Amino acid sequence: MTNDTHDPTRRSWVERSNSADTDFPIQNLPLGVFRRRGSGDVPGVGVAIGDQILDLRAARKLGLLDGLSPALADAAAASTLNGLMALGQLESSHLRHLLMRILDADGRLAEPQSLVAMDHAELLVPAAIGDYTDFYSSIFHATRVGALFRPENPLAANYKYVPIAYHGRSSSIVPSGTPIKRPRGQLKGPDDAPRVGPSERLDYEVEVGFFAGAANVLGEPLTLAEAEDRIFGLCIVNDWSARDIQVWESQPLGPFLSKNFATTVSPWVVTREALAPFRCPAFTRPPGDPPPLPYLSSPANEGAGGFDVRVEVSLRSAAMQRAGLAPFGVSRASLRDMYWTFAQMAAHHTSNGCNLRPGDLVASGTISGPGHGAEGCLLEMTRGGADPIELPTGEKRTFLADGDEVIMRAYCERAGYARIGFGECRGVIS
Amino acid sequence: MTNDTHDPTRRSWVERSNSADTDFPIQNLPLGVFRRRGSGDVPGVGVAIGDQILDLRAARKLGLLDGLSPALADAAAASTLNGLMALGQLESSHLRHLLMRILDADGRLAEPQSLVAMDHAELLVPAAIGDYTDFYSSIFHATRVGALFRPENPLAANYKYVPIAYHGRSSSIVPSGTPIKRPRGQLKGPDDAPRVGPSERLDYEVEVGFFAGAANVLGEPLTLAEAEDRIFGLCIVNDWSARDIQVWESQPLGPFLSKNFATTVSPWVVTREALAPFRCPAFTRPPGDPPPLPYLSSPANEGAGGFDVRVEVSLRSAAMQRAGLAPFGVSRASLRDMYWTFAQMAAHHTSNGCNLRPGDLVASGTISGPGHGAEGCLLEMTRGGADPIELPTGEKRTFLADGDEVIMRAYCERAGYARIGFGECRGVIS
Repeated sequence: MTNDTHDPTRRSWVERSNSADTDFPIQNLPLGVFRRRGSGDVPGVGVAIGDQILDLRAARKLGLLDGLSPALADAAAASTLNGLMALGQLESSHLRHLLMRILDADGRLAEPQSLVAMDHAELLVPAAIGDYTDFYSSIFHATRVGALFRPENPLAANYKYVPIAYHGRSSSIVPSGTPIKRPRGQLKGPDDAPRVGPSERLDYEVEVGFFAGAANVLGEPLTLAEAEDRIFGLCIVNDWSARDIQVWESQPLGPFLSKNFATTVSPWVVTREALAPFRCPAFTRPPGDPPPLPYLSSPANEGAGGFDVRVEVSLRSAAMQRAGLAPFGVSRASLRDMYWTFAQMAAHHTSNGCNLRPGDLVASGTISGPGHGAEGCLLEMTRGGADPIELPTGEKRTFLADGDEVIMRAYCERAGYARIGFGECRGVIS
Repeated sequence: MTNDTHDPTRRSWVERSNSADTDFPIQNLPLGVFRRRGSGDVPGVGVAIGDQILDLRAARKLGLLDGLSPALADAAAASTLNGLMALGQLESSHLRHLLMRILDADGRLAEPQSLVAMDHAELLVPAAIGDYTDFYSSIFHATRVGALFRPENPLAANYKYVPIAYHGRSSSIVPSGTPIKRPRGQLKGPDDAPRVGPSERLDYEVEVGFFAGAANVLGEPLTLAEAEDRIFGLCIVNDWSARDIQVWESQPLGPFLSKNFATTVSPWVVTREALAPFRCPAFTRPPGDPPPLPYLSSPANEGAGGFDVRVEVSLRSAAMQRAGLAPFGVSRASLRDMYWTFAQMAAHHTSNGCNLRPGDLVASGTISGPGHGAEGCLLEMTRGGADPIELPTGEKRTFLADGDEVIMRAYCERAGYARIGFGECRGVIS
């Protein structure tokens, strides 16, 4: 058994995890929080492996975690990932190596009674999220959306200097699968006073977020290198947005009710360590763009600060569901095309002394690539509702209709490495 | 002993609470979280009474809380106020009546061993604040600040319809007395690329916030009447702001690093019940202003939705401190002059289904009145730095200098009632 946790030849005794198309091979080992469906059990930490979940509280009772430090074993038996996130990189690495030994086909730690079938589990929001921050890091998204609202000046003068962000709402973050209620709000025509009604321009935004690990004390900024180390792991984020509410409420303090009615996260946190083979250079700025300011610049970040995480959005209407049609692919893009890396976002976030706590969620902003088909939300894809997309049923969509299901998936692929999947981030509009 | 908890003739066996100038007479009974200074004790819930704190965990051990329901007694012995906030209005009222019996001069429950001198206590942030929301409810503030940045259009078209707000940062909320480190950030001249340095336009904003009690489930808006009931209690909030960082970063998503480096709260939560005698009509809209939309309108709110809480800001420079000079009064205003009431803010906040959790903090926005001397921040007071204020030492201030201490106080006064004070919200710039 090699010590390389990325070795693509490694197999597990959990059979389905050895299939080429699984999101969760033994090289992945993402962490989440679950309980047996309908059980009302206290939630516990689990690890996704193929179509199964390794229950860490059960594993601990079986003595499988005996090699870990008491703090790490306690954190693994908790009801959120916050404790594991707080322990830092070295402990995370110990856990990864132990999990690999437990699940390795050549290991001697096969304990099927510590597994729960994913089909029998309810997957929850994996951390108690203290603060949720949402960035705006795709220059393609910012430019295309900016052109709809400010054609004369699509990209604000600060964009290439400041990783733009706002604080989102923690209380309304829900796990994949939670139905999304169409929000009501103030809707404004061009002339009249606003009326109140259900949003008529309900949209998704596909994003990837990172959970902060042991981060910084209030008043002490992180360097870019420190910020990189504080990334615990990544998940998919759907930043549901009501565009009609947004356009009316956002001056002068930014979006509020247009965003805070719900944010969906995928339940599995793919660790930074699992993603090591998929690091890539930071965005290559076109000639003429200013270089990042010194606190946002380092050769390490330029060389490998990015993550090549590919995201795909698909849509299934109620009629498609009834007809048994598969979800319709709407867009594909990669996190590698973002103007700022996660390390730059975290360094900027703490540059004024603001503290990140373990379990805080920091999202990328809508992930859009340069070309058509890579627009990460409907506002952008349909050019503000001007160009509807057509579904296989012939239905047209500018924004989301009731009964529409939005399915986001993310994964990493590279020759010579096992495919690392993120699972799904789903939600049906109700 | 009367059953009226607002009876101004009621006195306590804690002598200092009977003085006319105390913030904490027996009619107030604000709740906070404290520990003995330097003790490293687990924090506990306390009640301010004169210059003393009634320690509820100690009171419970002495059997003084025996009349309460087990849930209420447990919440009173916790380390944050969240549990008490979650129990709802009826339980809060039971607690208030019991505390009054314990502390009443005519009662038989005098137990000096359950008191801790305020001088010997460290006062903490009173709740685990899940989400912190900051409104922008003074039309005087919005108009004067708007005129500095957008002279042609000081008040955005949405202002009289939408209670404007943004999400702030929970992690950097600190209790009164915590030194405030001047933030660094991107500073931008009129032409050049930005440079990075300490903010040169550091400001305070005087606000009052409410802590949410048992509130709403995700997806279920609160009516205006329900929203009123979900206000647990109030505290003073200083929304420190770095104006140079703010002006450069805020487009298009609002303020971020210009605000999230620190927010100071006063440690005592003055309950809604204690404030009942100081309710006042909602703001009288001048002729020509549109009426509030139906979900923000009710006769009850118009008649008594406001709180006449008076706020005062004073400033003491390091030189004033060395010279033994008292803080210099800078401004006075009242929460009654806000364009929106707290109930309107909470109803709007939940109108899209967004959930408020017990312990969430919702702040008013800068409290400014109509006239000069009622500007709730230096940006407004000095007209963007054009008109410095002069301190008793002859020092001038446009924005805050290192060593400056900002002291905010708030109180309610009305003939025939005991004065209800909020205590202080202090911070020194370091």
